[in-house]
Amino acid sequence: MSIEPVAGIEPPYYAVVFTSVQRATLDGYEETAARMPALVREVPGFLGYESARTPGGLGITVGYFRDEEAIAAWQRNGEHQAAQRRGRAEWYENYSVHVAKVERSYSFERG
Amino acid sequence: MSIEPVAGIEPPYYAVVFTSVQRATLDGYEETAARMPALVREVPGFLGYESARTPGGLGITVGYFRDEEAIAAWQRNGEHQAAQRRGRAEWYENYSVHVAKVERSYSFERG
Repeated sequence: MSIEPVAGIEPPYYAVVFTSVQRATLDGYEETAARMPALVREVPGFLGYESARTPGGLGITVGYFRDEEAIAAWQRNGEHQAAQRRGRAEWYENYSVHVAKVERSYSFERG
Repeated sequence: MSIEPVAGIEPPYYAVVFTSVQRATLDGYEETAARMPALVREVPGFLGYESARTPGGLGITVGYFRDEEAIAAWQRNGEHQAAQRRGRAEWYENYSVHVAKVERSYSFERG
C-alpha cells in the first residue's frame, strides 16, 4: 500500500478509480492483493497508485496511467484477470470503476 | 460517509480525487469534515462522493460532478474554502487533488 499521495504527474494522464465493498469471508484475498502492485509496476505507462480502506467499509484504489494503452495492457494481464474473476466470484459485495482523463492536478506538502 | 460505491452515472462527468495524509493532531477536524457532505449536496451538478481512510494511513475522497461549473461552484463555497485553509494550516501533512473527466464507468453488484 502506498502511504504517500501520488503527485507531480504532468497532465494529461488517466485515473482509474476502483471502489469496493468486500464480503465478510476473504479467503485468499490478501495474497492476491499483495501480488497486484508488483504486477502493475511492470506495465509500461503505469504511473502510480493510491489505496485506502475504512475498516468494515468502503475501499478505494486509484491507479494512474499515462494513456489508454497502458490501461488496456493492465486489463490484458492474465494474473490480473484471474484476480478480477475471483473478486466477482468470492470477495466483493459490489464495486464500481470510473476511468477518467486527468485534466489538472495540484498538491500540498507541509513545509 | 457513503458506504456504497457511486454507480450508474452516465458519462461524461467529472471525478475530483482528493488524497491526503493527516497529522497526528486533528482538533476540530471531525466537526468540519462532518459538515462537508451536507454542504456539497447543495451544489447544482453534484452527483455523489465516496470516502475511505486506512487508519493511520492514506485517506481518499472522490467527489463526482456533472461538469466543471459544478466543481467551480463547490470551490467558491465559503465554508468549504475555510475548511481548506484550516486543512493546510492544521490537519494535513500532505495532499493531492486530481481533477478528471470520466469517460466510462461500470459496476458489479452481487446478485
